[in-house]
Amino acid sequence: MYYIKKSKVKMKNLLKRTLSIEATEKIGQEVLLKGWVERIRGHGKLIFFDLRDRKSLVQVVVNAQHSEKVFKVAGEIRPEFAIELLGLVHKRPESAVNKNLSTGSIEIEAKDIKILASAETLPFDTTKKDLNLELPTLLDFRSLTLKHSRQQVIFKVQEVIADAFREASKKLDCTEIFIPTIAASATEGGAEVFEVDYYGHHAFLTQSPQLYKQIMAGVFERVYTIGHAYRAEPSVTTRHLSESVQMDCEIAFIDDFKELLDALEFVGSYVVSKTVEKCREMVLSFGKDLPLVPKEIPRLKMREVQEIIFKRSGRDVRSEIDLSAEDEKEIWSWAREEKGSDFVTITHYPTKKRAFYTYPDPENPEYSLSYDLIFRGLEILSGSQRINDYDQLLKTMQERGLNPENFNIYLQTFKYGMPPEGGFSFGLERITMKLLNLQNVREASAFPRDMERVDERFAVIEKKDHKNT
Amino acid sequence: MYYIKKSKVKMKNLLKRTLSIEATEKIGQEVLLKGWVERIRGHGKLIFFDLRDRKSLVQVVVNAQHSEKVFKVAGEIRPEFAIELLGLVHKRPESAVNKNLSTGSIEIEAKDIKILASAETLPFDTTKKDLNLELPTLLDFRSLTLKHSRQQVIFKVQEVIADAFREASKKLDCTEIFIPTIAASATEGGAEVFEVDYYGHHAFLTQSPQLYKQIMAGVFERVYTIGHAYRAEPSVTTRHLSESVQMDCEIAFIDDFKELLDALEFVGSYVVSKTVEKCREMVLSFGKDLPLVPKEIPRLKMREVQEIIFKRSGRDVRSEIDLSAEDEKEIWSWAREEKGSDFVTITHYPTKKRAFYTYPDPENPEYSLSYDLIFRGLEILSGSQRINDYDQLLKTMQERGLNPENFNIYLQTFKYGMPPEGGFSFGLERITMKLLNLQNVREASAFPRDMERVDERFAVIEKKDHKNT
Repeated sequence: MYYIKKSKVKMKNLLKRTLSIEATEKIGQEVLLKGWVERIRGHGKLIFFDLRDRKSLVQVVVNAQHSEKVFKVAGEIRPEFAIELLGLVHKRPESAVNKNLSTGSIEIEAKDIKILASAETLPFDTTKKDLNLELPTLLDFRSLTLKHSRQQVIFKVQEVIADAFREASKKLDCTEIFIPTIAASATEGGAEVFEVDYYGHHAFLTQSPQLYKQIMAGVFERVYTIGHAYRAEPSVTTRHLSESVQMDCEIAFIDDFKELLDALEFVGSYVVSKTVEKCREMVLSFGKDLPLVPKEIPRLKMREVQEIIFKRSGRDVRSEIDLSAEDEKEIWSWAREEKGSDFVTITHYPTKKRAFYTYPDPENPEYSLSYDLIFRGLEILSGSQRINDYDQLLKTMQERGLNPENFNIYLQTFKYGMPPEGGFSFGLERITMKLLNLQNVREASAFPRDMERVDERFAVIEKKDHKNT
Repeated sequence: MYYIKKSKVKMKNLLKRTLSIEATEKIGQEVLLKGWVERIRGHGKLIFFDLRDRKSLVQVVVNAQHSEKVFKVAGEIRPEFAIELLGLVHKRPESAVNKNLSTGSIEIEAKDIKILASAETLPFDTTKKDLNLELPTLLDFRSLTLKHSRQQVIFKVQEVIADAFREASKKLDCTEIFIPTIAASATEGGAEVFEVDYYGHHAFLTQSPQLYKQIMAGVFERVYTIGHAYRAEPSVTTRHLSESVQMDCEIAFIDDFKELLDALEFVGSYVVSKTVEKCREMVLSFGKDLPLVPKEIPRLKMREVQEIIFKRSGRDVRSEIDLSAEDEKEIWSWAREEKGSDFVTITHYPTKKRAFYTYPDPENPEYSLSYDLIFRGLEILSGSQRINDYDQLLKTMQERGLNPENFNIYLQTFKYGMPPEGGFSFGLERITMKLLNLQNVREASAFPRDMERVDERFAVIEKKDHKNT
């Protein structure tokens, strides 16, 4: 047998691994496949199963009449066993071709099977198109549920989103920067920060890469970073994570506020369009409507949004100082119906609702040169032009009750020539969620962190702690 | 004047910003430049200064005889002022061309200058080729020192290293994954972890993406991620950061240990070669020797390394259970001299010196299927084949005094068919450090974190705290 030889090197020379998708080009040849077993069906002296590798599934048949020994091994296999398989590639007859499968034109006849790793009996049926699990179960069995093809698609699409963001940032001539997540002060002020015991000193996890990317915009003019943001929000919603992946740009020497809107809309439309272009089938498998990306994304001031909502629905939110989740959904409906767009850019939020570094509109300082980008009814991006004058920044911090001494390195950058600048931050999980019509942002995170869970639910963790003590 | 018009939109239509490097193609034309001021020289009725933007420097001349008003503004400018400048592009006479500057063939005659942001008097001379500051000063003034051209080069090269890593990982067919940094248990065990107050629960910052990337290798077979690693090491060396950027790969369904060595050496040489190819001049500006990347990187077992060191230097480290920094430098000298290589792969470290998930060598379990990659005398990569059998892993954890209940989600992945697998992790700052011959890894981090500093030195922070209370 090819693989029971002692020398691994010889085995490798003898036969190199073939991916299932490559086998379609090797009809009549012997191939060495590796992968995980899915769906097993027995028909008397025949056993069929699907083998899943990183590219696709392929159907395998084991015939007892060809080898009793291989048939016996196949009989021991259960779903999710990791195996190595020597097989002969057969072309299927035209009538048996499975057009829904990239390897649907072939079938592998097993000549030998080696079990690399066995699997326990699965706690639920993983062979269905949808797992149909409640979110807590989906996350309790995360190492297993991630293997399901539909779950895999989510994170394959997520990879493409991140790459598209990097591409768009490079087109804007941004330099990629790497910035820390441990800081000595809370980024945005406020209480919603996680505290770290840092060699006995107080430190915090950054609520955003904000302060550091501004410093770096003072170096490279245009910068981008993909990093983590930590928010100790004491609430559980379908839209919030305690640790999220943020995709940030910051641009200095801007001509005006409009240049920032142009930039964020460019990046936002690029990311969504490019991802749909590259992952069309995957996106369609999560919903029949592809996103509407217009040539010009509608731009509205927050007060205009409230007026539109009042006119459309009679719901009067015109005196509210922020938009609610319901408002964001309503203005999306308007954008779809009136402008053929799944995006809306909303500007001029009240200054006091935004972080201290937000530039107040010189024409009416009660409102700010801030913006959110709404995609399919959810804010996927937030940002603003920043206060770039040292004295104005210092004054604003003091008015907000922040101690400037806690922001020394940040303030330093404004002492040495900070031009007009601004930026924005995309939530990777939120874009993934809305692009794939997921109901909960946790589904768009491989290992979501929230108030109730770090991998396991705290209820479970604490029960164990109790048991251990 | 073009820029004092009220309507910004009109201004933009009138003249779009030109980058200094683009001005070389616009001789005889008026251009709008933006940037920071460097080196100012006055010669009677002439003022010369360099203007720095994200692409290059360009020389500007202001002539009092052309405009007294502009000359007056120019007289107010100090280094690091951010300005906007309307200028006429002149070709320099052949004799005045500066061949060391990409814009050395032109000079800009200032027609108008607008100060966008002023700068305080600089605390040190930033116009020299080298800043020549002690590390504490370099970091105390980080927002300013990062603007120095030599500092910028470090992080421009770093960007290229990260991109090259992503390229190499894609060539290995790895899927990019995004994983959390907050975990419920210490990744590798041990005491060197930072604790986070997570909604009143105990949580930790991950010492590496290790456990999560292994889970994801059980999903996508081959994965990569660029993330953060946190080490609460209570020591201050030139090689350690408390928060570092790690570039990780994990590969499942490997044929054998050698496949992992092939993979890590491919990625390591690709990253260094590609970066040198793209940043040749920048790398050469930090040292005249380009890295030696051989076709075959020498591979030695740790015990063989110790024998070589003994033979070369007479220093007997053969009974030590790990290599010291000095040993890594010595074996590098050997590799350069004997093999023409700045790289050495060292394998088979003692099992008890490596993390619990490391696969013991079946031929001698006292040693492990582990490896470090040494580049110019420093470990820039570490990794191993992993224990992929559930029972063996459980037993090892128990032997090491780890409570398996704290690793439930991780262990779950080994219950459901984990094939032979392994991986490795590059330190981004360490590669940057060695490629550019930096003396301290902190120089390769824009905002380094260590025992003594988070942006500011703790001595300074605590003095303030004392003052505030």
